[in-house]
Amino acid sequence: MKKVRSIIYKDGKLKLLDQRKLPVVTEFITCSTYEEVGECIREMVVRGAPAIGATAAYGMAIGAMTSSVKDTLTLVKELEHIAEYLCQTRPTAVNLFWAIDRMLNVAKANENLSLEEFKERLLEEAHQIANEDIEINRRIGAHGEKLIDDGDTILTHCNAGALATVDYGTALGVIRAAHEAGKKVHVYADETRPYLQGARLTAWEMVQEEIPVTLITDNMAGYVMKLGRIQKIIVGADRIAANGDTANKIGTYSLAVLAKEHGIPFYVAAPVSTFDFSIKTGDEIPIEERSPREVTHIGDIQIAPEGVKIFNPAFDVTPHEYITAIITEYGVIKNPDAEKIAALQDQIQKEG
Amino acid sequence: MKKVRSIIYKDGKLKLLDQRKLPVVTEFITCSTYEEVGECIREMVVRGAPAIGATAAYGMAIGAMTSSVKDTLTLVKELEHIAEYLCQTRPTAVNLFWAIDRMLNVAKANENLSLEEFKERLLEEAHQIANEDIEINRRIGAHGEKLIDDGDTILTHCNAGALATVDYGTALGVIRAAHEAGKKVHVYADETRPYLQGARLTAWEMVQEEIPVTLITDNMAGYVMKLGRIQKIIVGADRIAANGDTANKIGTYSLAVLAKEHGIPFYVAAPVSTFDFSIKTGDEIPIEERSPREVTHIGDIQIAPEGVKIFNPAFDVTPHEYITAIITEYGVIKNPDAEKIAALQDQIQKEG
Repeated sequence: MKKVRSIIYKDGKLKLLDQRKLPVVTEFITCSTYEEVGECIREMVVRGAPAIGATAAYGMAIGAMTSSVKDTLTLVKELEHIAEYLCQTRPTAVNLFWAIDRMLNVAKANENLSLEEFKERLLEEAHQIANEDIEINRRIGAHGEKLIDDGDTILTHCNAGALATVDYGTALGVIRAAHEAGKKVHVYADETRPYLQGARLTAWEMVQEEIPVTLITDNMAGYVMKLGRIQKIIVGADRIAANGDTANKIGTYSLAVLAKEHGIPFYVAAPVSTFDFSIKTGDEIPIEERSPREVTHIGDIQIAPEGVKIFNPAFDVTPHEYITAIITEYGVIKNPDAEKIAALQDQIQKEG
Repeated sequence: MKKVRSIIYKDGKLKLLDQRKLPVVTEFITCSTYEEVGECIREMVVRGAPAIGATAAYGMAIGAMTSSVKDTLTLVKELEHIAEYLCQTRPTAVNLFWAIDRMLNVAKANENLSLEEFKERLLEEAHQIANEDIEINRRIGAHGEKLIDDGDTILTHCNAGALATVDYGTALGVIRAAHEAGKKVHVYADETRPYLQGARLTAWEMVQEEIPVTLITDNMAGYVMKLGRIQKIIVGADRIAANGDTANKIGTYSLAVLAKEHGIPFYVAAPVSTFDFSIKTGDEIPIEERSPREVTHIGDIQIAPEGVKIFNPAFDVTPHEYITAIITEYGVIKNPDAEKIAALQDQIQKEG
């Protein structure tokens, strides 16, 4: 059994699992400079908000460590330029900006340190960002696995796994935790057209860790539920409104409707950083539309005629009424609604 | 605008649209011998039960016309061998056997004709089989289009079009009839993984005939319904039980559940030959499982890891409770159930 970890720092170098080549080739790209790290973010060697954030943090640390400047104050100035460079690699990734800001703030707060101590401090902060993400996922897993029964077959969509985070994952973290707790679980993975994250990434992760997994096309989900094969559904989230409405990979909403029809619990697993408390309902969440080519082509193979219109939304919104519970690192919110999520917000502020 | 017809007989030759090359290349294969016709059936140049039946019938006629035997009785014997050859091209296609049997019966009933008259009679019967299919589809279209309102956007799944029949189609026949009646219709086509009949065939047919069409991946169907973009859903059928439960391409059941949740009418369009009155409910319909490779590969591109299990059912069954109406050449059966379908069976027997 091989543990899946997509971001590995060792001896001044960052090794990133090249997710573009999965599931056929397992290959790491080694970055020795912040430019190489930036290039890997831009070219989608890494994907998933937490993974991108941690990668960028290591990019900042590597930028400091490889710098030839002779004093800390000058290095802080240089890091501002490095931050600017890294911010431009994926212009809409919130976690990217957040991680880079955090690194810059640490830099500014430590400009009185010696050059060597300063570099060490930055690397330490990058490790901390990565470790916090893993820790959050493990807490999500610990809360979530209590909802899983021995013998359950669990359907998931897209990839909310170790490959989207630093390690362990959110939805797949819950499945891993149940597996580690000795529960016999079987995973059904939707292939998740058009980008095929389920087929390429989720199925690959489960095969690596020897968790039994069956791959289906997205349109089979209803039928496998009707056959009685699915006991739970767990998905991740891209953004959660203050009333619990959840934006996630396109196809999630269809699964939630099918789950309701078949009386199957439908769970969302996500860190509290996914909540956007400023947005009252899911109606306010903008839905990104992506390139028609993702639908008309697979690799270089054209599968649709010239002249056809394409609709390619990246996400959909599942109203909170369809969600049995949201699993966060703070615990499980059953039948989520505005009131319960306001209480969570209070709890976060109190616990810090 | 180009009319789509996949089977064209002219001057002793059968031209078949090579559906394996769609939607990128539009190419006909010309068959001059019954062996060539058989090869095209075997290699899936043609697909769809009615299309396969008519193709085989022309195969029998061409077999007779190209034979060098000198008397009708010997030719009837030879046709029995040709029938045997053609039957083996697709071992489970009911329409194939039905069409070949009908041709053989016509042959046996006309063994007293002169050689020339006999060959003409067989060709006439093949034309009749093809024309009957077109006529049935036009009657389905005429009944079905009354259910379509001007301005409707209609979602369909797989390909129940001209490419699956001799011409016009069943589900797409209803859409064509509404379009021909001057109603403004827009089609949403599910791409229909794993074999992509929606992307490759339905989208292509609609583009050819300039009926506006938008292609989506299967997992987007629920979201487009939620957006209020879909007014009707129409699909074809592979087999309908005596209570109205309908087997059709995998993914149909999910659409029916989503239609119910959104209050969208869900129609099945199919000739009465699709009914299997010997089967009481859909539970008795066997579901064919197809090769895992359809899911793990697209063309030669591997999209899933080694070692993953695959579930690849070709069809699912939609219980009759989800079906707003079944549209046949005999008319529209609203809220289909055992009683109404028994009445249809009586009607068929009376009208012959």
